[in-house]
Amino acid sequence: RSMATSARQSLTIGLIPADGIGREVIPAAREAILAVQSELPEVKFIDLLAGWETFTRTGTALPRETVQSLKEECDCALFGSVSSPSRKVAGYSSPIVALRKELDLYANIRPVCSVSADRTQPPAVDLIVVRENTECLYVKDEKLIHTENGKEARATRLITERASTRIGKIAFELAKARSRKLLTIIHKSNVLSVTDGLFRESVRAVPGLPGIDGKFDDVTIEEQLVDSAVYRLFREPQIFDVMVAPNLYGDIISDAAAALVGSLGVIPSINAGDTFVMGEPVHGSAPDIAGKGIANPVASIRSAALMLRHLGYVSAADKIDKAVDDTLAPAKILTADLGGKHSTTEVTDHIMGLIKK
Amino acid sequence: RSMATSARQSLTIGLIPADGIGREVIPAAREAILAVQSELPEVKFIDLLAGWETFTRTGTALPRETVQSLKEECDCALFGSVSSPSRKVAGYSSPIVALRKELDLYANIRPVCSVSADRTQPPAVDLIVVRENTECLYVKDEKLIHTENGKEARATRLITERASTRIGKIAFELAKARSRKLLTIIHKSNVLSVTDGLFRESVRAVPGLPGIDGKFDDVTIEEQLVDSAVYRLFREPQIFDVMVAPNLYGDIISDAAAALVGSLGVIPSINAGDTFVMGEPVHGSAPDIAGKGIANPVASIRSAALMLRHLGYVSAADKIDKAVDDTLAPAKILTADLGGKHSTTEVTDHIMGLIKK
Ligand SMILES: CC(C)[C@H](C(=O)O)[C@@H](O)C(=O)O
Ligand SMILES: CC(C)[C@H](C(=O)O)[C@@H](O)C(=O)O
Repeated sequence: RSMATSARQSLTIGLIPADGIGREVIPAAREAILAVQSELPEVKFIDLLAGWETFTRTGTALPRETVQSLKEECDCALFGSVSSPSRKVAGYSSPIVALRKELDLYANIRPVCSVSADRTQPPAVDLIVVRENTECLYVKDEKLIHTENGKEARATRLITERASTRIGKIAFELAKARSRKLLTIIHKSNVLSVTDGLFRESVRAVPGLPGIDGKFDDVTIEEQLVDSAVYRLFREPQIFDVMVAPNLYGDIISDAAAALVGSLGVIPSINAGDTFVMGEPVHGSAPDIAGKGIANPVASIRSAALMLRHLGYVSAADKIDKAVDDTLAPAKILTADLGGKHSTTEVTDHIMGLIKK
Repeated sequence: RSMATSARQSLTIGLIPADGIGREVIPAAREAILAVQSELPEVKFIDLLAGWETFTRTGTALPRETVQSLKEECDCALFGSVSSPSRKVAGYSSPIVALRKELDLYANIRPVCSVSADRTQPPAVDLIVVRENTECLYVKDEKLIHTENGKEARATRLITERASTRIGKIAFELAKARSRKLLTIIHKSNVLSVTDGLFRESVRAVPGLPGIDGKFDDVTIEEQLVDSAVYRLFREPQIFDVMVAPNLYGDIISDAAAALVGSLGVIPSINAGDTFVMGEPVHGSAPDIAGKGIANPVASIRSAALMLRHLGYVSAADKIDKAVDDTLAPAKILTADLGGKHSTTEVTDHIMGLIKK
């Protein structure tokens, strides 16, 4: 999964804090990267605009310069979080959904792992949600018509063999590299036999032996209907290892998994394509706490680590992750979402202290 | 919400156990209805076929005679659960989805309420999921095409003003009748601004004051994106009272809520239209435990009560619900899903004993 690192003389990272607490946590992720600079080629940051606030000022949520810089100047990027208007606003469209498509970041990888106080015990929850990131209802092909009986709206849900196969490959490789080697395909093919049927068949076809239950390359392949997957996530999360899902189910499943480990504020993700990777905390812009300096920086810091790991900078990523785990396990320096009362800066400083130790 | 009961000389109930544990729990629901016979007009049962097993024998999952009997002879019905083939089988289509549409049972009402040992305390979870039951991706309008790049599948997600308004009305009336009077609209309009936009607007328009946050008829109206609703259901279920959702989100949300109260085996539902109502346990056919006599009959028994309540037989429903609560609260006579070791029959007998006392 990792991209070749050898050729890189420098590492240029686009920073897109976007809205709300994105602006408070992306700087923490930047600090974490700087703290492991010695493990990396020369690091450069480029500040880029996107989001609702950018839209209200400039009329576009994703300026052309941002996309151009990401494509031409950056090796990777970190995206914060975006606020959405509560009702349809002409011309506005979510920049994160657009970026995923524009840069063909087809895999949204979301590891959810609990850190327990007793570090000798295996984590209670240890899974990865691998979410297809470019199609399903997120193609946003919607139409409204007026009929005699009132308005009727239709959206298209697109599932292709190509996209399902490539996300299946990523998920399969991730499962193969883990100790439990279990891949669970999430779908709702009892209702959507054609679209979800194609998704599950395409994923199953990845190991080369379509349609037969069992193991391939030591990877066990299972399935779960999305409703029942959410139910079982709550009741027995240990049955899951790597979960692969179409876009919308993956969105919901990753929030459900996040609830199991205390807070969305600790869940990182990367949006990965074949030539670009963008770290993104799973949480939203949290307008209710934005500007108060109390947002949890962990999800963004971990997203930076996940991005570096994906780029092949394993020791840099390990250093960051260890400092985060060593902060979470004793549960002393925590933000409010985890029941603590420390600020974003205090938690960030503590993690930086541990990285540098 | 209740249908007029006065005119009814007799009450004819269609019984469709369908597959798996449906065959073990629908008889328990039948017993519960017989146990409160004195509160009802003359009760008649008609046994009807549907399901996967019916499909394998007859080539159709929903025989024409079943639909005809429901429409012409029955006042209401109880449906068990249906097994689905793990892959697409030509000619097979889920009979429960078809029945909901065929009988225009547009509201799927799923109350989720915990029963605590200390009956003086209010329940920790006490909410109702009101799920639109006829459209969204469940219209099953799917197409597969072959392209140069492989297969491409498309499904249509249909949201109409008419269906969203009528489910909104049901949800609004339910919220108005409860003590907390809170209605939360579940959607994903930050991505699906047209379809989910229409859903939320239509529901908001029900009280007659579209688009403004706040209270109408003492009902507070709130919104939650579906991913965040699942997260918050796990973390702080007490923030929800009545949740109204398009079909697929409602399917997922109700399983998530079920996980909070110990088992899917205790969650009832009704599929209600303007002239017909069908009780249905939320759980599936559970092939792993089918035939062992250990399935939890509570969801089906409660579905019978919910159906009778909807038909206006309030005292009959109260009697059944009280006997169920008085069985669950002491937590002594329980099936395996709730950590007990009693059989379906033992739990059913215990509930019947309490009803008759
Ligand atoms: C903000 C929103 C468009 C986004 C999504 O649905 O993908 C978010 O929920 C996420 O999970 O990254
Ligand atoms: C069996 C299946 C078609 C059904 C659904 O998705 O509606 C079930 O999950 C339910 O919730 O009643």
